[in-house]
Amino acid sequence: MAKVYLVGAGPGDPDLLTIKAARLIAQADVILYDRLVSPEILALARPGAELIYVGKEKGCAEEIQRRIFGELSLNALRGGVVVRLKGGDPMVFGRGGEEWAYLAQLGVAVEVVPGISSAVAVPSLAAIPLTSRGVARSFAVLTGQDRNGFREEWTGCLGIDTLVILMGVENRERIARALIDSGRPDHQPCAFIECGSTPRERVVVTTLEDIAQGRVEVESPAIWVCGEVVALRESLLPRSPSSESRSAFIPSPLPVAVRRNAPGNGVLEARELAKSLTS
Amino acid sequence: MAKVYLVGAGPGDPDLLTIKAARLIAQADVILYDRLVSPEILALARPGAELIYVGKEKGCAEEIQRRIFGELSLNALRGGVVVRLKGGDPMVFGRGGEEWAYLAQLGVAVEVVPGISSAVAVPSLAAIPLTSRGVARSFAVLTGQDRNGFREEWTGCLGIDTLVILMGVENRERIARALIDSGRPDHQPCAFIECGSTPRERVVVTTLEDIAQGRVEVESPAIWVCGEVVALRESLLPRSPSSESRSAFIPSPLPVAVRRNAPGNGVLEARELAKSLTS
Repeated sequence: MAKVYLVGAGPGDPDLLTIKAARLIAQADVILYDRLVSPEILALARPGAELIYVGKEKGCAEEIQRRIFGELSLNALRGGVVVRLKGGDPMVFGRGGEEWAYLAQLGVAVEVVPGISSAVAVPSLAAIPLTSRGVARSFAVLTGQDRNGFREEWTGCLGIDTLVILMGVENRERIARALIDSGRPDHQPCAFIECGSTPRERVVVTTLEDIAQGRVEVESPAIWVCGEVVALRESLLPRSPSSESRSAFIPSPLPVAVRRNAPGNGVLEARELAKSLTS
Repeated sequence: MAKVYLVGAGPGDPDLLTIKAARLIAQADVILYDRLVSPEILALARPGAELIYVGKEKGCAEEIQRRIFGELSLNALRGGVVVRLKGGDPMVFGRGGEEWAYLAQLGVAVEVVPGISSAVAVPSLAAIPLTSRGVARSFAVLTGQDRNGFREEWTGCLGIDTLVILMGVENRERIARALIDSGRPDHQPCAFIECGSTPRERVVVTTLEDIAQGRVEVESPAIWVCGEVVALRESLLPRSPSSESRSAFIPSPLPVAVRRNAPGNGVLEARELAKSLTS
């Protein structure tokens, strides 16, 4: 039975691959990979594996997508371990669902292997929590574009505390104005994260008003986080310990009774736990 | 310098840990772990590692949280490899940001290791893409609860195509009614995914109207996906190949010119690629 693994490659660092993804990449006979998959990750493929680049360049997306379908079906029917490797999570943007549906229609089994979505992980790595008790109880991931170029309607997002806006850099002034017009405070903090999760990461912290006024320089692509959680970043960045901070309240550790109130016994040696799982 | 690793354990399957998380769990001297971290993952800890259960039981969350802060600071100052292990992603719900801020204030360095968020991965694994071209360009993750018990206001979410609702099972009838009242179509498809990503996974596909009418039986906890993408699931589920589906259009593979139009050369051997990276 033909099978294709639809695998998420995460944000780029091979250390952020899942164990399952790393194993499948190492076993694959064929890997069809996107523009966002890093060379460091492809280097995990076994010698002799066929690596086929199917990244989309601007303007010929539909043509390439038809060819991806062709490569997927031909390689699936040829047999072996076929990995369709996509940046981030394969089902968050990036048309993973369409490729899955195409293969299902041909009777090809698909197994999805979730990946770390950049939309979620890049803000975390930049010290911006997407949710935080009392600050944000919800987040949304959306694009700054629709068929007409940029998304005009933002009042329907006003109930969402944190917005993660993809592909919004180019039209940032108009989007920021539209967000303010929709009812978001003009001083709502925003961050643009360029080259997120890489050593070249650059974070620009600003406000909706400053973006709308054209005062913010940022290079595309960047992930745009809009919401009060951006202000938490300052409290997470490293600082040198001062006498004041050292004297902060340190509560007592868990009493032994609480430690023991655990699934599988609280404080215990990993070896015992492993033994109990295998016996 | 004291340091704590704030690590995401993913949805439960050890295969869905990141490589970095697995390595840190294996190296840790101390692991503080939540209720949602599976025993299979804890079994990766080295013999002699101290595993401290700090899961929150209903009703005493604040008390436990204070004690988590205490354990974190004491263990950080004691030195060694300290891992704070949280289900899913450490910064998506679950108060990871608060723990980070607490440690930063003490001068303790924090390194965050993103994990696979169940809110994103569980729908994918259940064959529901959160986005799909022409169907959904946005998704939100939010809770069905606020301070008053359940979230009343949903018109501010109407601009989001796919909603992933956590902690919404108990009040599902009132929430579904509120979603319809906010303007979502009463026949909008919904899915509840119980025990997502485990062998006991159960998916209930229904509509907002049926939920509002009290016709849907579902066990808490479950992840609730609301949006037209739920209807795509049927086209992704495995089916036996028929003569009809076999005759579906199979486009030609990528021409060699396109194969070569790749970062690092298109079709090439992994060994060459690895060599080029290290030279």
